[in-house]
Amino acid sequence: WKNLEPESGIVVKFWLRFKCLILGGLISRVVGFWEKVWDIGVGEPRKVIHCIKVGLALCIVSFFYYMRPLYDDFGGNAMWAVMTVVVVFEYTVGATLSKCINRAVATFLAGALGVGIHWVADHSGNEMKPIILGISVFLFASAATFSRFIPTVKARFDYGALIFILTFSLVSVSGFRVVELLELAQQRLSTIAIGTSLCIFVTMLFCPVWAGCELHRLIHQNMEKLADSLDACVVEYFKDSGNLSEEDLNKKIQGYKCVLNSKATEESLSNFARWEPTHGRFNFGHPWKQYLKLGAALRTCAYCIETLNSCIGSEIQAPPCIRENLGDKCLKVSSYSTKVLKELAITIKKMQKSSKTDFRVAEMNFAVKELRDALKSLPSHVIAPLSIPTIEQPPEGKAGPISIATVPPIMKVLPLVTAVSLLIEIAARIGGIVDAVEELAS
Amino acid sequence: WKNLEPESGIVVKFWLRFKCLILGGLISRVVGFWEKVWDIGVGEPRKVIHCIKVGLALCIVSFFYYMRPLYDDFGGNAMWAVMTVVVVFEYTVGATLSKCINRAVATFLAGALGVGIHWVADHSGNEMKPIILGISVFLFASAATFSRFIPTVKARFDYGALIFILTFSLVSVSGFRVVELLELAQQRLSTIAIGTSLCIFVTMLFCPVWAGCELHRLIHQNMEKLADSLDACVVEYFKDSGNLSEEDLNKKIQGYKCVLNSKATEESLSNFARWEPTHGRFNFGHPWKQYLKLGAALRTCAYCIETLNSCIGSEIQAPPCIRENLGDKCLKVSSYSTKVLKELAITIKKMQKSSKTDFRVAEMNFAVKELRDALKSLPSHVIAPLSIPTIEQPPEGKAGPISIATVPPIMKVLPLVTAVSLLIEIAARIGGIVDAVEELAS
Repeated sequence: WKNLEPESGIVVKFWLRFKCLILGGLISRVVGFWEKVWDIGVGEPRKVIHCIKVGLALCIVSFFYYMRPLYDDFGGNAMWAVMTVVVVFEYTVGATLSKCINRAVATFLAGALGVGIHWVADHSGNEMKPIILGISVFLFASAATFSRFIPTVKARFDYGALIFILTFSLVSVSGFRVVELLELAQQRLSTIAIGTSLCIFVTMLFCPVWAGCELHRLIHQNMEKLADSLDACVVEYFKDSGNLSEEDLNKKIQGYKCVLNSKATEESLSNFARWEPTHGRFNFGHPWKQYLKLGAALRTCAYCIETLNSCIGSEIQAPPCIRENLGDKCLKVSSYSTKVLKELAITIKKMQKSSKTDFRVAEMNFAVKELRDALKSLPSHVIAPLSIPTIEQPPEGKAGPISIATVPPIMKVLPLVTAVSLLIEIAARIGGIVDAVEELAS
Repeated sequence: WKNLEPESGIVVKFWLRFKCLILGGLISRVVGFWEKVWDIGVGEPRKVIHCIKVGLALCIVSFFYYMRPLYDDFGGNAMWAVMTVVVVFEYTVGATLSKCINRAVATFLAGALGVGIHWVADHSGNEMKPIILGISVFLFASAATFSRFIPTVKARFDYGALIFILTFSLVSVSGFRVVELLELAQQRLSTIAIGTSLCIFVTMLFCPVWAGCELHRLIHQNMEKLADSLDACVVEYFKDSGNLSEEDLNKKIQGYKCVLNSKATEESLSNFARWEPTHGRFNFGHPWKQYLKLGAALRTCAYCIETLNSCIGSEIQAPPCIRENLGDKCLKVSSYSTKVLKELAITIKKMQKSSKTDFRVAEMNFAVKELRDALKSLPSHVIAPLSIPTIEQPPEGKAGPISIATVPPIMKVLPLVTAVSLLIEIAARIGGIVDAVEELAS
């Protein structure tokens, strides 16, 4: 007995440790997952509201389905109303509307075509019927699938093409007679109408999320992020961090990355926004395509900031006098560029042309000119402070050391000069953004 | 009568012109559209094959539906097989498989849960039943909708969550008894099994398009495009276009834009590729995530080329001697960088570590070192040719004019120096690509 005790003790200990490890790992993963979920919910409460809206819409439509005695007309077809709600309900109003319209129109077109083909097949004799039906399914399904590869169709009618194929094949291969089919089609269309109208109703009345507003918000937020990022980048480069903590600064610098990756979101939002009716300050037919151009202009600026950001890593070896002189000018350019971007962000946000914009742009251009001038006069600036020690040297050696000492070995100023050049390029690209905003405003 | 003739002549003329204009516009638009469609078909014949595959799969599954006497067991549920094929059949094998598995698993889970809830509701009395069902639909639909906002779920199980909501609400609100439900569920699962297995069969046997292969191809094509773009960019800058026409050169330069915009495609392909079984040279569990890292490394390089490209526009004002000297070195760096990228593209393409890579990288680094050295010795290079005229000047003024003439006013060399600096940065980023390829290979 005594011999066994320590052994079992080891086994138990091992088991306990094992359990701790497994359970600990599992629990920490579950906790981590829940924290992530919680963050998403707290970060964007509208997503939680969307989930409640979906639940609500489904409950209402299920009521139709469940209370069959009340709506006996729809029979088993009531299922299609539930299905429509599940498939069609999307986060933004534009996406829901686009799916609703696509679904309704495609169902109607494919149904009509299917009934027509059926009629032709019925009149061609029993032998030809399956052949005609098979060939028509093959042809129309292939053609509709191909249409989904065409970019313009893909962007707007992708879901419609899918529903077209679905409805057409269901109708044309069903064994029903044409009269039965018409009744079936009528029932199905009315259930789909119930589903879609319920979706539109719920999505537009309870806390609607408009794709247009989202696009608008995304663009002006990206503009602000770009402004902060540019400013933080230059400030970090010249180590003039002021009263910002290192962490804050780093976070701000990373802002341009959001701009780099927002192309796909912008495109899908702009595609949905064009389906939306007038809402808030946006009319039907608002120039959403201009937002894409503006987004592209912001991205070209972000590419430059990305390159500028890689300059930060390299040490500045330039002589302090050059560094200080150019540094001041660079900070000036970046702060004025930031002001232009922030002004444009306000213009976009308020949708009012700001009188200050032209003034800000002029300020920025003047700062760029100053920076250029500072660059032009750089050698003489360098000569000035260095020429003092040369006085102590014998006059015959005077010129020699100056000419060598005054030429800043280009490798030393290379990162600085590159940064300056990129800054000038960024200012030029901000000019492109100003143009895009003006085009949008007009 | 005579009075009328000229007038009607005018009307007719006007009408004819109007008709020409309208018809001409319409015809040219239709022709333009068909040309675009034709180009898509000719450009990627696999897309046409995909369309034929969809048509084929639908014809086969319609056969099940049409020949009802043969498969009377399935009854009206055969519709679900057609539906499954339409909804699940995607362009790549990975996408189809992911949808099939999502659909099957989600239907099974939601069906089981729905039957369970139904059983509980049946045992809670007639008054409680609709309340329990309603609350459960609300809760599960909301939770599943929320799960679609979690990025990891969204990437892999988005379709599964949708089908879960659909099946759960259909099952739980259907008025059937549990025994009937079980029979229905069994039938529906078997029709879905028919649909999914047919899809998998058709998509994998006839000219399969593997998402993994597509991703692989996209990455090495992007690498080649980047290489061509870099080379063409530098060649264009130094106007050393060799035997390439201007048009060819411009087309090559634009190659980097494909790389900038391929993030979304890469991510979706890598998500699909992980569902694919072993095919060709790719095993199940191939490190597809590494491809995303490689793609990101390519993109950072593309950002730099984008910035470099904007330097092309600005005129080189640098003195010819500097320009020539640096130009040769720059062309050398770009041609060696291009060689490294092309070698890496071959490595990726053949999936074999090339023995030449290290050699090519060493060559590139040496070229970069030479460029740096050329920059370092730049002032003395400039002094050399200019020091000849100074001999003719009086000795006391000797140093003065040299020191001024030899300092190249920095504004003149600014674009050149920036281009050089960007080229060095690009070479550094290519080093990052080399690392990513090595990580992938190991």
